[in-house]
Amino acid sequence: MKNYIKADPWNIVEEGFDPALNEVSESIFSIGNGKMGQRANFEEKYSGHTLRGSYVAGVYYPDKTRVGWWKNGYPEYFAKILNSTNWIGIGIQIDGEELDLATCEVESFSRVLNMKEGYLERKFVAKLASGKRVEVKSTRITSLVDSHNGAIRYAIKALNFAGKIRFEPHLDLNVFNQDSNYDEQFWVEVARSATDGTAIITGETKKTAFRLATAFRYQLDIDGQVATAAAETLSHDMYIGYASTAALAEGQTATLSKFVANISSLDVAPDALEAASRSSVQAAQSKGFDTLLAEQAAAWAAKWEGCDVSIEGDVAAQQAIRFNIFQMNQTYTGEDERLNIGPKGFTGEKYGGVTYWDTEAYGLPFYLKTAEPHIARQLLVYRYRHLDNAIKNAQKLGFKDGAALYPMVTINGEECHNEWEITFEEIHRNGAMTYAIYNYINHTGDRDYLAEFGLEVLIGVSRFWRQRVQWSDRRKGYVMLGVTGPNEYENNVNNNWYTNLLAQWTLQYTAESLAFVKASNPQRYAEITAKVAFNAKEDELAAWADIAAKIVLPVDEETGVFIQHDGFMDKDLTPMSQIPAGEYPINQHWSWDRILRSCYIKQADVLQGVYMFEDRFDKETIQRNFDFYEPLTVHESSLSPCIHSILASSIGYEERAYAFYLRTARLDLDDYNNDTEDGLHITSMAGTWMSVVEGFGGVRVRDGKLSMKPWLPKQWQSYSFRIFFRGAHLRVEVKPGEIVVRNESDVATELTIFGQTTPLAAHAQLRHARG
Amino acid sequence: MKNYIKADPWNIVEEGFDPALNEVSESIFSIGNGKMGQRANFEEKYSGHTLRGSYVAGVYYPDKTRVGWWKNGYPEYFAKILNSTNWIGIGIQIDGEELDLATCEVESFSRVLNMKEGYLERKFVAKLASGKRVEVKSTRITSLVDSHNGAIRYAIKALNFAGKIRFEPHLDLNVFNQDSNYDEQFWVEVARSATDGTAIITGETKKTAFRLATAFRYQLDIDGQVATAAAETLSHDMYIGYASTAALAEGQTATLSKFVANISSLDVAPDALEAASRSSVQAAQSKGFDTLLAEQAAAWAAKWEGCDVSIEGDVAAQQAIRFNIFQMNQTYTGEDERLNIGPKGFTGEKYGGVTYWDTEAYGLPFYLKTAEPHIARQLLVYRYRHLDNAIKNAQKLGFKDGAALYPMVTINGEECHNEWEITFEEIHRNGAMTYAIYNYINHTGDRDYLAEFGLEVLIGVSRFWRQRVQWSDRRKGYVMLGVTGPNEYENNVNNNWYTNLLAQWTLQYTAESLAFVKASNPQRYAEITAKVAFNAKEDELAAWADIAAKIVLPVDEETGVFIQHDGFMDKDLTPMSQIPAGEYPINQHWSWDRILRSCYIKQADVLQGVYMFEDRFDKETIQRNFDFYEPLTVHESSLSPCIHSILASSIGYEERAYAFYLRTARLDLDDYNNDTEDGLHITSMAGTWMSVVEGFGGVRVRDGKLSMKPWLPKQWQSYSFRIFFRGAHLRVEVKPGEIVVRNESDVATELTIFGQTTPLAAHAQLRHARG
Repeated sequence: MKNYIKADPWNIVEEGFDPALNEVSESIFSIGNGKMGQRANFEEKYSGHTLRGSYVAGVYYPDKTRVGWWKNGYPEYFAKILNSTNWIGIGIQIDGEELDLATCEVESFSRVLNMKEGYLERKFVAKLASGKRVEVKSTRITSLVDSHNGAIRYAIKALNFAGKIRFEPHLDLNVFNQDSNYDEQFWVEVARSATDGTAIITGETKKTAFRLATAFRYQLDIDGQVATAAAETLSHDMYIGYASTAALAEGQTATLSKFVANISSLDVAPDALEAASRSSVQAAQSKGFDTLLAEQAAAWAAKWEGCDVSIEGDVAAQQAIRFNIFQMNQTYTGEDERLNIGPKGFTGEKYGGVTYWDTEAYGLPFYLKTAEPHIARQLLVYRYRHLDNAIKNAQKLGFKDGAALYPMVTINGEECHNEWEITFEEIHRNGAMTYAIYNYINHTGDRDYLAEFGLEVLIGVSRFWRQRVQWSDRRKGYVMLGVTGPNEYENNVNNNWYTNLLAQWTLQYTAESLAFVKASNPQRYAEITAKVAFNAKEDELAAWADIAAKIVLPVDEETGVFIQHDGFMDKDLTPMSQIPAGEYPINQHWSWDRILRSCYIKQADVLQGVYMFEDRFDKETIQRNFDFYEPLTVHESSLSPCIHSILASSIGYEERAYAFYLRTARLDLDDYNNDTEDGLHITSMAGTWMSVVEGFGGVRVRDGKLSMKPWLPKQWQSYSFRIFFRGAHLRVEVKPGEIVVRNESDVATELTIFGQTTPLAAHAQLRHARG
Repeated sequence: MKNYIKADPWNIVEEGFDPALNEVSESIFSIGNGKMGQRANFEEKYSGHTLRGSYVAGVYYPDKTRVGWWKNGYPEYFAKILNSTNWIGIGIQIDGEELDLATCEVESFSRVLNMKEGYLERKFVAKLASGKRVEVKSTRITSLVDSHNGAIRYAIKALNFAGKIRFEPHLDLNVFNQDSNYDEQFWVEVARSATDGTAIITGETKKTAFRLATAFRYQLDIDGQVATAAAETLSHDMYIGYASTAALAEGQTATLSKFVANISSLDVAPDALEAASRSSVQAAQSKGFDTLLAEQAAAWAAKWEGCDVSIEGDVAAQQAIRFNIFQMNQTYTGEDERLNIGPKGFTGEKYGGVTYWDTEAYGLPFYLKTAEPHIARQLLVYRYRHLDNAIKNAQKLGFKDGAALYPMVTINGEECHNEWEITFEEIHRNGAMTYAIYNYINHTGDRDYLAEFGLEVLIGVSRFWRQRVQWSDRRKGYVMLGVTGPNEYENNVNNNWYTNLLAQWTLQYTAESLAFVKASNPQRYAEITAKVAFNAKEDELAAWADIAAKIVLPVDEETGVFIQHDGFMDKDLTPMSQIPAGEYPINQHWSWDRILRSCYIKQADVLQGVYMFEDRFDKETIQRNFDFYEPLTVHESSLSPCIHSILASSIGYEERAYAFYLRTARLDLDDYNNDTEDGLHITSMAGTWMSVVEGFGGVRVRDGKLSMKPWLPKQWQSYSFRIFFRGAHLRVEVKPGEIVVRNESDVATELTIFGQTTPLAAHAQLRHARG
């Protein structure tokens, strides 16, 4: 754990330069706009440790799968979002001496991520070997207004000398992925030009043939006056740039503004890319950097208006929650149904930038409550577009008749993961897809989504469950063998309670949804059922109903808890608190087999099901299962504490709820797991937000109504959060003595607070004394 | 399946040249002498498909482990026996035209492996593009008399021309392993010389720094007269050779004899290697090729005298069983306790040439009965020498206090395998080590082995089982969680019956062995118990006895069979005969998860235990388990049919016993699995032999006496086999009406035939009417 980020309610602040922390900071200070993202690498050369990363959403490479021993059914490739054209580069030479913070004396240094306005600022004073001292301030954005644009303002002041500053703004396509399986380079240069002050480099990815045109223009000022230095073109393989020199008197400042457009063939036809990037970068330059910055601030202000969480009395907590919200919004904007949320967003390469069930379990609840419904809806449409590939995935594993198995890891619907115990067995993810549909409809009320897209997904997944279970004469029930639950510290188990529960629920919900569409939209019902050949081979509804009625969901007689999976109770159930210090995290200290045969749980498993289907269980049941399973849980996934925090809130374990919240709130800011350098834990950031809103706020949607049971952690003076709900937008303030809910929208709604339902008119406010 | 090998009782014969079969034949016609082995590659250039392979026992490389996702406890490397100096090469140019069977017309071609005398002969007539026709006959041995020597006689006759034949005998160190993980070259050239007619190249392996000096001398004759052609030295990186030209009249024959010595630093100090190889090759040449060939025939005659199996009335079966015996003896001679048996012997690279539990389960029973006891004993000593590393392996996985876990795959006692479900979980292999000690002592009567080496191994393995089980309050017994049995189509299961049984037995046998050594050799007992700190932390005997008494070994109430593992009976138990044609082998047609959740069994699992502990079970129990499990068994390991054949013989299922025997008898000769090109299935060859001797012959050792219950497959007229037993050597002939046993040794013994025990004096014969 580190503790070098300065607390501030709206800014992430690093002061002083520690090269050992540089890669961590590169992750933390990343910027992005849903379409492109950039680690907080330096513009000028840096010869110290750095993980350079410029990522463009959706531009991936199918890297050859690397396994030790091949298993039938493994995918041929692992998709990776590629490190792409480095667009931030600005080489600096001072009278021929290269500016490089790894080799000069750094007298002062700060990095500030301004979350309110959405920019990264870096300032430093460096003394070169020659004794020349410069003061640098760089400001950088990836534009939320035009997601193809980035811009940098790089100002350098000659503190104690008069001399020539040579700027080399450039684009560099000679980039690699640190995590490539076979050390390949993934890009081929297609074109490179520098005409009329616009430099453009176009690359094409190998195999996938995505094209990316990156253009830049620049402007050089001295003390605010446009400098008219002659520009030299720098051009060689995979590299294009300009060089321009400013002669400064002592105390003068040269400022280079670099305007960038980064457009891929996902958005523009390949042969139109260069023209598009040229006109985009011209438009950006004609606005000018100050305008771009002002637009950016306005766009972020609008975002914050919808989703801010404020905390009084704990600035570290305030900073952390805003950081998490900020990164969620930098990662995903919902503007493009082809994009999704990688576990590291645009902040690193780990996990390949591809999509996991984290999206449905954590991302979706966040966007559902913090944005207009169409944002979250895009996440569902993304999976709908992958349905055909999910059916193919299932076919590869021997399923048929339209059964769909959504992949564990994907970018286009094809499976990319290659550990059999996960790829083939961690199939509960398939239920996350259907639950997401329910969750979306439950929150938004948009039942029309079923007829449009949802029903087909539900049918495909239900068909999978139907084929995946089998009747057991011995058990007098349907069993599901050979699965891995959310707790990946158990592999290839039988009758994982959570998976069986999700399967049962999916079959029931699909039947309900079929009935609803049949009644509400018979024409569409006819279309869909014809398209998927519903009931062609058997009475599918009857088969599903039989499975839902008879799937085994065992309860332990002795303890009354749901049994995680067959045989779990045979284990040595010593609480994890008895693990000797120095032996956890167990995934770093124990061999894999020891972990597997232990009882220890990586992340919520039975409790994940209890959380998702909380309505079904009384408080005693929730508490009994929590009391049994939580002490066996090692929380070695960043996605674990939030679910436990929410459940702890729900059953009144307030101190523990707060403790769980703390475990993830500043996970990356304080680099708890020593892995922030690989990138940020984006999806777990949504979990932290859920701990506050669903946990402390107790927000639920029950019977079509928004309900809440907020409590106030004693470490805080008050907190507030905002929620979109069926057209209304509420601001909820939780104070020591009362809860104040303001409807900030034009839409009237109803609200249940501590079980008491009250109408809440547009722009009205409601005060409720805390119990 | 292929069927191109001609039937012959003592020879393996290929006639006609089919390039598509070349790599298969290269495996089948391999020669070896326990120290070195050589695939049946051509001496002259061959530009077609070939897998060149020259292997030297014990010379390995720790290739970097390749996995997709690392797990704690995985080994850093996978040891591979290296393809080493190619010593067979003899380039041939005919008036400047290269002889290459891939480019010329092959008019006739034959390969013969003479198993009786131990040599490979190849003959062909080829017509070159020029129209010149040559007749070639090459004869090759790896000497059983001096295992460092190889020799080749290569005769070429000018059939229709007069011209110059240029011979380029050479050594080539520029070799690669086809199965290397990262396409590396593993050899560095250390020295190369050609002086006084001896060419020597010395290589050193990277990382492991094994040295190998290979020397050769040659002699050139024309029509039997020594030719005195001037020799040219050919020398470049990784290559040394001579060129010598013979001018032939039409009809004349030039014969090059090449004598080779191949000596590694395992046998001779590195700085003495060149001198050793020089003197070895000189000695070989001074004997001359005919003498070497005659010595080889004599050595093989002595081998066959001890181990031949003859079959009357089925020449294909006769050929097959001799092929298997021949290959077993080419692979392992028991002369060096540091060597062991790779699953492919010296015939290919697959599985890295390293050692599996196959050695103890299949290799040991073969050598125990077909050779003097010291041969099999070396296999035990091999494991004793690895005990310290087995203890380290266990420590890596969290075990302590001298617990030993023998590796799944090894060359020096360190684990090399890297699939968690095998490496960490297929721990029954540990019991194979202790069972081998029992098996050896039971057969040979050499109980002194316990005091010398055996007891320490037994204690180490027992300590492992003691720590690997855990008490279950629920089961009121000791459970063993997270294992993989011999049936690798189930992973990470609980309470595999076979593994639990082996653990129980090991604990009991270790206790008995301790008591025996304590009583018979108290001084050694004191030494060993002090060395291993026996009883230092607890009463180990008491702990073991408690586990042995209370380990769960469940019997199914409904069927009365032993339950393969917890939950097995919940599966769909449809017999494998119902799997649709075209879907097996299931490991090529089903995804891995489907295999795992099916009931289908790869190889004997419960039945492996029933086989090993047959004495404990009455015939009805054996039959009940066989009838239950065999129909669920897909026999997708070459090691499966033999165990089933032996059990089928034991319970009187004669037709099925014969059918199982057939499945492995000609596995490689007929290339049943389309994988012989990768190398031969050496360890399963021992299983075929066991099917005859333990199966058809019904040979057992019970209560210190040799017993047998032979039956005669109706496809055969008679068969005979030979057995070493406690100093005696018996030849058993099974005829339609009677069994004739001849004691061919000077040692009297007793024999139980069909339950009737009779003494059998030295050199006496016994006739017993078949029941």
